[in-house]
Amino acid sequence: MSDHVERIDRKLLHAGTIIDMYTDTMRLPNGDIETWDFIKHRTGAAAILPILPDGKLLLVRQYRPALDRFALEVPAGARDSISEPSIDCAYRELEEETGYKCEHLTPLLKLRTTVAFCDESIDIFLAEHLTKGERHLDPAESIELCAYTLEEALSMIFDGTIQDSKTLSAILAYQTRLSSRAK
Amino acid sequence: MSDHVERIDRKLLHAGTIIDMYTDTMRLPNGDIETWDFIKHRTGAAAILPILPDGKLLLVRQYRPALDRFALEVPAGARDSISEPSIDCAYRELEEETGYKCEHLTPLLKLRTTVAFCDESIDIFLAEHLTKGERHLDPAESIELCAYTLEEALSMIFDGTIQDSKTLSAILAYQTRLSSRAK
Repeated sequence: MSDHVERIDRKLLHAGTIIDMYTDTMRLPNGDIETWDFIKHRTGAAAILPILPDGKLLLVRQYRPALDRFALEVPAGARDSISEPSIDCAYRELEEETGYKCEHLTPLLKLRTTVAFCDESIDIFLAEHLTKGERHLDPAESIELCAYTLEEALSMIFDGTIQDSKTLSAILAYQTRLSSRAK
Repeated sequence: MSDHVERIDRKLLHAGTIIDMYTDTMRLPNGDIETWDFIKHRTGAAAILPILPDGKLLLVRQYRPALDRFALEVPAGARDSISEPSIDCAYRELEEETGYKCEHLTPLLKLRTTVAFCDESIDIFLAEHLTKGERHLDPAESIELCAYTLEEALSMIFDGTIQDSKTLSAILAYQTRLSSRAK
């Protein structure tokens, strides 16, 4: 018997558009059997923290039906397929959502959004030295670009205006990197 | 017609153990109709970043079937119900998972784990000035306590050892708070 939970079965309940819902049958360390939820994210995603020439952070504001409200986020998008390198996805999403390009994205963080029930991963990149590219929004995307100083973005994290995990992680990681560069 | 996506229907597909899966029918700004996934988290959750008397951060290491591996995380748990104040959940989970108590938790962050398809929220608290309490693990919980200096924890974020969003957000937010206190 294992000293941690063990999965003894996994059944697909519903195949969604970007995620699939499964039910897992788990054996607990004491031998009990339980049913757990599992959400498989088909492709994973990439996100980008773009820094404008004046040092401001470029965020996107869009309506999120899951929250029934607008949210401030870093530009991001799902990978085209499980085999697409997440950095290629990041280069594409940066230009499509913001109209800016970046010659050299720097890996910043690797994120698992919610490990209790979901395997979604988001690779986050830092985009400095931006140049002008071409914006191409999907029909579903109605995205407003918003620029904030780092101090403004940090205040919006601590006052609860920015709550999205990939976004606040990216901003806090950038702040931490900057402070360690300054030392 | 709206300038952002509008939900015109929502149907429950499957009621899980801690989450429910829905399908949303959305009208896009151009009039097209699409089907989107929505995951409702029943209760939301609370998480705690505990700071030991020697300044080390107390994390928990547990097996996560959704990732098929162990993960390092801050102590956390779901609220008992939608009406439970998340700080009450945080006081309880801190003592149950770590055996430490805290007289006065400080709100640190409000997190939405993955806004593209899920409404899950996690309220994160900072636990300083810990005292000894009593550990009570659930039968499903097989949790190892691990203590790290802030520098070690930051290294583990930037080398990809710590990927869980609530955990790295909490550690980076604590680092940012400490640096601003020091100024």
